[in-house]
Amino acid sequence: MSVRVFAGSQRVDAMPVDDRGLAYGDGLFETMLVHAGQVSWWDAHWTRLQCGARRLRMVLPGQGQVRSEADALFADGAGGVLKLIVTRGSGGRGYAPADTPANWMLSPHPLPITRSRDRLSLRWCATRLATQPALAGIKHCNRLEQVLARAEWNDPAMADTGADEGLMRSSEGDVVCAIAANLFVLRDGRWLTPKIDRCGVEGICRGQLLALLETHEARLSVADVETADAVFLCNAVRGILGVARLGERTWPSHPAVAQARRLLARIHPGFATDAEIS
Amino acid sequence: MSVRVFAGSQRVDAMPVDDRGLAYGDGLFETMLVHAGQVSWWDAHWTRLQCGARRLRMVLPGQGQVRSEADALFADGAGGVLKLIVTRGSGGRGYAPADTPANWMLSPHPLPITRSRDRLSLRWCATRLATQPALAGIKHCNRLEQVLARAEWNDPAMADTGADEGLMRSSEGDVVCAIAANLFVLRDGRWLTPKIDRCGVEGICRGQLLALLETHEARLSVADVETADAVFLCNAVRGILGVARLGERTWPSHPAVAQARRLLARIHPGFATDAEIS
Repeated sequence: MSVRVFAGSQRVDAMPVDDRGLAYGDGLFETMLVHAGQVSWWDAHWTRLQCGARRLRMVLPGQGQVRSEADALFADGAGGVLKLIVTRGSGGRGYAPADTPANWMLSPHPLPITRSRDRLSLRWCATRLATQPALAGIKHCNRLEQVLARAEWNDPAMADTGADEGLMRSSEGDVVCAIAANLFVLRDGRWLTPKIDRCGVEGICRGQLLALLETHEARLSVADVETADAVFLCNAVRGILGVARLGERTWPSHPAVAQARRLLARIHPGFATDAEIS
Repeated sequence: MSVRVFAGSQRVDAMPVDDRGLAYGDGLFETMLVHAGQVSWWDAHWTRLQCGARRLRMVLPGQGQVRSEADALFADGAGGVLKLIVTRGSGGRGYAPADTPANWMLSPHPLPITRSRDRLSLRWCATRLATQPALAGIKHCNRLEQVLARAEWNDPAMADTGADEGLMRSSEGDVVCAIAANLFVLRDGRWLTPKIDRCGVEGICRGQLLALLETHEARLSVADVETADAVFLCNAVRGILGVARLGERTWPSHPAVAQARRLLARIHPGFATDAEIS
């Protein structure tokens, strides 16, 4: 499958070499599930992108063009993953942002293979998320913290490198999210998810589940997570992933996680199919 | 002047679309002064790059090839600025870093026009630098904080947008650096510069001046800077820039700044020429 790159509204062969996304990570991205040729939750993804563009004072390309190019990539009705990167555009040397048209790129990817949908194994990452309210919530392209956290798996000195994913804490020690997913924990019959006002990404699937599960946003400690009755991760590509283990702590499958997945499947046909497979 | 791009050791037309620098800012850069065809402080720049690569667990291209390609760009003996970006290379979707050969890019740029070499006007930036010891010191490509700080100039609601540069504080309130330069302040006859262990970049010119001026690395408060006897900024392209104003505070030219510039000119012919011009 082919990648489509644009400078402003013009299709080009490659990202311009003076792209500010490449120079400074000065951009935003969205990773979307495509189910039967349809991009799932398009409006929610575009709304988050707009929110990010306002925060970074960036100009987005026209939604209509991006949408029709995205649809064209999956015109055969297949499923998969669609990644959109939008950068501030081309710029000279220097941090000062100019009012340049965005450079952007659409790339199709295969669906991930989910081995252990309800039996996910987690560890605590040593890498912390720095507190930066100016960037919290939005899906920007400054992702070295996530890269460093994932690189811990390559370090033989690190414990539990057999884990599927890792939980990240803020500089202050609050639990924030997994490396590439948001976190929900069940305590006293109520779903809780970390606040995303200091660091972390406001995930699209998280946003859907806030209302669907009447979730409470809270500061969560390590103990709050480890003593929870049930834990799951979620993101827009994989939906809900039940957690079976976090370090020494193990959880059996919990009916509340199965119920959450049924509720999500009702509003999202892509995850309905997946739930039947698992 | 033309940009040279490489995937591993092979010259290519453009950065690969799946470059991790573009996706995550997963890379490092150096901005170097070229004086009479010679890259200044090459060894110091390469050493910082190696330090960054160790921290990010990234593989660098061979120094010999990078150096000879850099020299070729300035083979006519001209002066200018050379920017090197080295990324972790191409990667699929996902944060997990693979052991891929680096993608890298050399671009020549004109020398900046220094309008007010010894009469720089500064303001305090509202944007803070997040505390992240895992990334402090190295010149990585996650630079949205610097972009946001520089974007404050485009906001009519912000004070003092006529300033030349801005000073940045950490989340804790310590003064760290300017947006694109390091900071030195004179107090009680001694030069001080902020510690770079929590955030900020260990500038190459800063490194030269640490020894040359017997500088003490310290935590500096806003008051420490505002009540200093003299202040200058420095970086590897512009050398030493004397500060005449910071918000309401003004400083006359100080002989210690002139002396610092003379000492720097002695070890660096590029700045000797500049000092004569100024």
